Amino acid sequence: MSADTTPRPGRFITLEGGEGAGKSTQARLLAERLRSLGHECVVTREPGGSPVAEALREVILSGVAAPLGPSAETVLFTAARIVHMAQTIMPALARGAFVVCDRFTDSTRVYQGALGKVDPKLIEAMEEIAVRDRGPDLTLMLDLPAKTGLARAAARRADGAVDRFEAEGLAYHEGLRSAFLAIARAEPGRCRVVDAAQGPEEVAASIWAAVEDRLGPIAQKAATS
Amino acid sequence: MSADTTPRPGRFITLEGGEGAGKSTQARLLAERLRSLGHECVVTREPGGSPVAEALREVILSGVAAPLGPSAETVLFTAARIVHMAQTIMPALARGAFVVCDRFTDSTRVYQGALGKVDPKLIEAMEEIAVRDRGPDLTLMLDLPAKTGLARAAARRADGAVDRFEAEGLAYHEGLRSAFLAIARAEPGRCRVVDAAQGPEEVAASIWAAVEDRLGPIAQKAATS
Repeated sequence: MSADTTPRPGRFITLEGGEGAGKSTQARLLAERLRSLGHECVVTREPGGSPVAEALREVILSGVAAPLGPSAETVLFTAARIVHMAQTIMPALARGAFVVCDRFTDSTRVYQGALGKVDPKLIEAMEEIAVRDRGPDLTLMLDLPAKTGLARAAARRADGAVDRFEAEGLAYHEGLRSAFLAIARAEPGRCRVVDAAQGPEEVAASIWAAVEDRLGPIAQKAATS
Repeated sequence: MSADTTPRPGRFITLEGGEGAGKSTQARLLAERLRSLGHECVVTREPGGSPVAEALREVILSGVAAPLGPSAETVLFTAARIVHMAQTIMPALARGAFVVCDRFTDSTRVYQGALGKVDPKLIEAMEEIAVRDRGPDLTLMLDLPAKTGLARAAARRADGAVDRFEAEGLAYHEGLRSAFLAIARAEPGRCRVVDAAQGPEEVAASIWAAVEDRLGPIAQKAATS
């Protein structure tokens, strides 16, 4: 344990993109590289990332709430995010860790907002309540053609099971891609678009370049214990 | 099992009021009387009433989310309500059952809205999303002086433990009482105020009178199986 009790601000990095873009693989590779340099890194995901939020994830992805419509779904995602922020993300950032999160607020903007046609005022109010001033320092938009992503997502599921978002058609997934890219264009400070059609190692290298470009060089951390 | 597959609308009854008003006791007594007449009655409560919603209840009442403020808390209550409606209340009503629920939307209006100062537009939007056109047919406002209610709530907890709402002072609980009564005045069709300072059997008799006044006479149900 470190004897250093000075509060250090952590770094909050989110990965966004459509199905099969490699978000969870890249979150793992990024965390491994950060840890190899001596940095604590918490890898998490949405919806989920804490026990209660994972239970909500099951409800959401099962489609039980789908008949209630995308506004109800937005509230469920926001509740899961509030719990995730309170129980996982904020404590990790407070102790100076990196947090790498697979999906976050941009997924709500895209799936429920742009595609689900939920009132933008509701999307904005929910984001403000859940995130306040502690949003991502960097968002990596993993971009690839929808057709490529869907083929990858199908290949990784040996049992052929798909969740209700994966079950949508190609036009839907092209819409997702456009909506993520629109966010990246609107917030170029926070967002970096990464070509996710490359192989995993090339994508990881692009991500590392984006991380250092945005957050500054990540040095080997001196041992403090 | 009944061979009758005709959809019959169920009846949705909520009990509201401050701490120690006897809501859970009266919910049980009302359900017993309905069942003795052959009616199916589902007794449930908020926050909670389904496994995921009960997990959210623990988060909310533990105070983990309290630092995030009453707006975040409102979203958590709403998410719990959405799940509760989808998994418990709507299915019961669809099969023609009575649903008796200990606390519902009026508690959100009072605790987070009137007392917590959450933007009324947020309270209204969340209620609309969770409840839509399937709100309570009857709300029983169990009314008694805050001091009496707090003394009762303290007496029933042998270990002296209080949750974070019970821990508030007397003025807060008088404010709750006023806010519940204001809702009853504003919606006299749906709401009935019951004097909860009486003994449990007198309160139960008042509640039964209110139920039949609002919903019509509740007859013995003919056996259908």
